[in-house]
Amino acid sequence: MKANIMYAAGDVRVEEMPVPEIQKPTDVILKVVAACICGSDLHPYHKMHAHEHGEGEAMGHEVIGRIDVMGSEVSGFKKGDLVVVPFAYGDNTCPFCKEGLMTSCVNGGFMAGCQAEYVRVPQAQGSMYKLPDDIDENSPLLPSLLTLSDVYGTGYHAAVMGGVNENTTVTVIGDGAVGLLAVLSAKKLGAKKIILMGRHKDRTDLGIDFGATDVIAERGEEGIAKVKELTNGEGTHVVLECVGLMPAYEMSLGAVRAGGVISRVGVPQYVEAPVGFASLFGRNITLTGGPAPTRAYMEELLPDILDGTLEPGRVFDVTVDLDGVPDGYRAMDNREALKVLIRP
Amino acid sequence: MKANIMYAAGDVRVEEMPVPEIQKPTDVILKVVAACICGSDLHPYHKMHAHEHGEGEAMGHEVIGRIDVMGSEVSGFKKGDLVVVPFAYGDNTCPFCKEGLMTSCVNGGFMAGCQAEYVRVPQAQGSMYKLPDDIDENSPLLPSLLTLSDVYGTGYHAAVMGGVNENTTVTVIGDGAVGLLAVLSAKKLGAKKIILMGRHKDRTDLGIDFGATDVIAERGEEGIAKVKELTNGEGTHVVLECVGLMPAYEMSLGAVRAGGVISRVGVPQYVEAPVGFASLFGRNITLTGGPAPTRAYMEELLPDILDGTLEPGRVFDVTVDLDGVPDGYRAMDNREALKVLIRP
Repeated sequence: MKANIMYAAGDVRVEEMPVPEIQKPTDVILKVVAACICGSDLHPYHKMHAHEHGEGEAMGHEVIGRIDVMGSEVSGFKKGDLVVVPFAYGDNTCPFCKEGLMTSCVNGGFMAGCQAEYVRVPQAQGSMYKLPDDIDENSPLLPSLLTLSDVYGTGYHAAVMGGVNENTTVTVIGDGAVGLLAVLSAKKLGAKKIILMGRHKDRTDLGIDFGATDVIAERGEEGIAKVKELTNGEGTHVVLECVGLMPAYEMSLGAVRAGGVISRVGVPQYVEAPVGFASLFGRNITLTGGPAPTRAYMEELLPDILDGTLEPGRVFDVTVDLDGVPDGYRAMDNREALKVLIRP
Repeated sequence: MKANIMYAAGDVRVEEMPVPEIQKPTDVILKVVAACICGSDLHPYHKMHAHEHGEGEAMGHEVIGRIDVMGSEVSGFKKGDLVVVPFAYGDNTCPFCKEGLMTSCVNGGFMAGCQAEYVRVPQAQGSMYKLPDDIDENSPLLPSLLTLSDVYGTGYHAAVMGGVNENTTVTVIGDGAVGLLAVLSAKKLGAKKIILMGRHKDRTDLGIDFGATDVIAERGEEGIAKVKELTNGEGTHVVLECVGLMPAYEMSLGAVRAGGVISRVGVPQYVEAPVGFASLFGRNITLTGGPAPTRAYMEELLPDILDGTLEPGRVFDVTVDLDGVPDGYRAMDNREALKVLIRP
């Protein structure tokens, strides 16, 4: 089968690989129907060092697929079922999964290898979410349904952990797919003032469609000053940090209101950060967030997609086949594409 | 009048000073009835540099006093009223105060100079809380009532911000007055498992009286391992960090359960700390806390003290007059005293 393998920064190749096989009785093999490239895939695309023995990394952690082979311990599904899989798989029965935190499942881990014809899903019974029978390969809803795997669930996690509701003002930092879907999520949770910080007009325009009430293109101190201007000098109750770089963290500190919450879902590309009296402590700022347990949000987020109320799949602006994935990485890296959909 | 002034690390002196006067019409001058030395006073006691022109700092931010002089804009009180004052004063009318965050009051600040015969209270009308008429200078409840000024309210703030309830397991780091009252607060909020980390048996014994179910004397990795042993390898849902030093922060990271909360009320003596994937983010740990808006908790915490249900004042184990304050600092610094009560 064809699969996309990353060997080093900037080096993604389509290669012929063996179709994955069941390794544990809790596995399922899916035939990939739709996958995509994630903003977080750009982190290794920028800085991955070649492995010592030349081996590569099978890329892709977001997938909708049809069940092709079922492990012997997987029940409640059948061959041919169309399912969406969270980027963080888990058994959905351990104490953490039961509390909605599959990203800390005792049997959990992160999906890999979805940018391929077939992919193995560990802990498949707990992880897979079956799509309604009237959804098939040709459904126009597939892109939106695929966002349940990661980016919509991640934006929603940011908003939920941030405590967004109808009384909170919100700043969203980042106009990538997660940032835009954090806007959509804040709107869904009732926020009336949603400030989107981003510099790419085509993206921030989509953010306005998703519910942003204000857009700030400026960054750093200038961007913070604009947030203050829009909020009576106070900052917003919640900041959804959807980037993961230190300047975004620093902007969050400036944009958040005393007593407010910074909710991070951009994977931090730093180890330490200011948390002392002058940054978080003195103003009782809460720092929260983390990898999103997207499986836990699927039931909740599905209906709005099925009935057409919300279209998170609008974040996909380029579609490629498996051969087009390396170009897809380049396009996302060059900001020519917001998010690339893969149809094998 | 007599007042205690700190000139440099280890150098506190009783001096003759002018009685403070009204500076703004929102001020009140109190005759001090009870004050105390705070664990946080030990931070400058360890590291304060002498000021260039030799001036000192008037010490003490916790006080119960009788109103002696009222500014012209203070109403709802009268001369002679016995009041307790939060260590962070405020107008109690600004948006932040209305939300219970007087520590971020737009007209707020921190009390100073309570270790004296008289003290000026800025924003007095919003800050002062009148004690019931049957409480006077001789009430055995005074020590407990004085803890409403800071340490009890601070321990309670830790527990509230940490989301402690009957379903959360709790680790309290630190066996100082705030740590012990964080234990009391966690118990009051219904926590059934409260692990107190501290090395001073007389203090941890009081912690057990206050509701601690387990005591861990070990620190660092050894201490973390003990917390894990007591919690099925998971850590506790909440960690109340009542120290403010980096080793306590690091211990919090180890003791907290995935998806849990670290609530800090120990004033951080560091600027940066680990917050990346391996520390907070990967396990969706929330970091919260800050200076406690103790005024906001007074109504809530008073009844248990008045009816004798709770005795937070048991944290005071030494009483001095104003001349005894420098010795009180030494005793607290040497861990001979847990917390020193001052009766001028």
